[in-house]
Amino acid sequence: MSERPGPTTRVRIREITGSEARDRRDDLATEEPLEIRLQSGRERRTAAITMRTPGHDFELAAGFLHGEGIAEPGEIAAIGYCTDEDVQPEARYNVVTVRLNTPIPDLPALERHFLTSSACGICGSASLDALRHRCSPVAPPELGLTQEVLYGLPYRLRESQGVFGKTGGLHAAGLFSAGGELVATREDVGRHNAVDKLVGWAGLRGELPLAANVLMVSGRASYEIMQKALAAGIPVVCAVSAPSSLAVDLAREFGMTLVGFLRGERCNVYAGMERIKVA
Amino acid sequence: MSERPGPTTRVRIREITGSEARDRRDDLATEEPLEIRLQSGRERRTAAITMRTPGHDFELAAGFLHGEGIAEPGEIAAIGYCTDEDVQPEARYNVVTVRLNTPIPDLPALERHFLTSSACGICGSASLDALRHRCSPVAPPELGLTQEVLYGLPYRLRESQGVFGKTGGLHAAGLFSAGGELVATREDVGRHNAVDKLVGWAGLRGELPLAANVLMVSGRASYEIMQKALAAGIPVVCAVSAPSSLAVDLAREFGMTLVGFLRGERCNVYAGMERIKVA
Repeated sequence: MSERPGPTTRVRIREITGSEARDRRDDLATEEPLEIRLQSGRERRTAAITMRTPGHDFELAAGFLHGEGIAEPGEIAAIGYCTDEDVQPEARYNVVTVRLNTPIPDLPALERHFLTSSACGICGSASLDALRHRCSPVAPPELGLTQEVLYGLPYRLRESQGVFGKTGGLHAAGLFSAGGELVATREDVGRHNAVDKLVGWAGLRGELPLAANVLMVSGRASYEIMQKALAAGIPVVCAVSAPSSLAVDLAREFGMTLVGFLRGERCNVYAGMERIKVA
Repeated sequence: MSERPGPTTRVRIREITGSEARDRRDDLATEEPLEIRLQSGRERRTAAITMRTPGHDFELAAGFLHGEGIAEPGEIAAIGYCTDEDVQPEARYNVVTVRLNTPIPDLPALERHFLTSSACGICGSASLDALRHRCSPVAPPELGLTQEVLYGLPYRLRESQGVFGKTGGLHAAGLFSAGGELVATREDVGRHNAVDKLVGWAGLRGELPLAANVLMVSGRASYEIMQKALAAGIPVVCAVSAPSSLAVDLAREFGMTLVGFLRGERCNVYAGMERIKVA
């Protein structure tokens, strides 16, 4: 396909219910690789390749670069799909080139392949120490959320999930005001990508840090999600499912509020309880 | 903590139900980094660092190295926690050293940071092409599954999830026989890690490829999960939730059976329908 891939892909499947089988068409969440290339003058380098759902690719690139501490939105001169001759037409919408107005920084080895200082060793608290070098604690708890606002977030996020309704296969991340109004929402097969797209959206509008906002995610809250929220200055993260131990450690260390199991009229508050007003 | 981290971590939380709040203790799924180091003679290199739930770490290392095509179980002379002097006591159980009886191979840049041939560009079909160099299609469809066996898999997987019951925060992967008997199960905060642990378990017992087995995962089926199943020779993958488009493409390309939305007495078959017997 030389045309631009969409967020869903139609396939023929066999649906089995009880002992009945029927063939029908079904919509799947599209998963395709995205290469994020950096360019500065004549220098070029690949920053990352991630499996993602096509759509909001420029925001994904900007959010990823911000979250990983590689480049700030203000350092981005232009973002575009790659029209280099070495990119085949079928791959054209899977390569985004980010032109920087600053030199290309040394790239941290990312994710499963990153290295931390061997001086302190590999452990959760060393990971938090490493974050402290580039992230400050979030703003003090001026922002307060009532229980009514909290309980409304999952419904509003779900309502906004266009592709999820069709495929059931996407993670969503929503940005809300302290009053519970939906500011923006993004979806992706990768939980971290949905957050990158949201933060990139805000970054490209010059709206970082998001010190007055709440991030709600459709799945669990892991270290990686919390790290991205912290880098964006978001003081409150809510999740439909459970947080991990390191997500809670990170929230407590950096003054963030972390709410989990937010479903129906209940939730657990794991950190930053002073921002939650129950009455 | 200099003691070995466990799969769960106890914290104090505030539970809010309606307009009532109470403080209590809660168990979280532990998330800690694991560094996988390769050693061959006097040469050493870090293969990867991944966020994982402690437990079955040697299996995770073996399964990861197999799934990424870095080293086969037969090339592993020994696996142990690292007692190098540069590793602090609190990080001792977060570093696994895998001693190879072969030279350390060139490490592929992994995951978000991998590079594929720029000749064919970055797209789903190029990703499948790259896999074809190191993975063969799975065994022909001798293995057949009845609907009764299929419908029983999610229950048996859930029953086996010890930590999930306490935390609600872990992904599970279960290996089953064609008759639906549970062979082994593993849990982790990372979906891919749970599969790595399972494949590593089989690999260290000399039981790869798993040509007569079924893999059942508690979440969605992405490209990454399918790639690991393919590398282990597993012909059938079942998921509680949706597959992605590229997961279906991979299954069809390599002759695998892929079942999604396996819940209650229903499922969707996305590929390899000839292995599913409905009557």
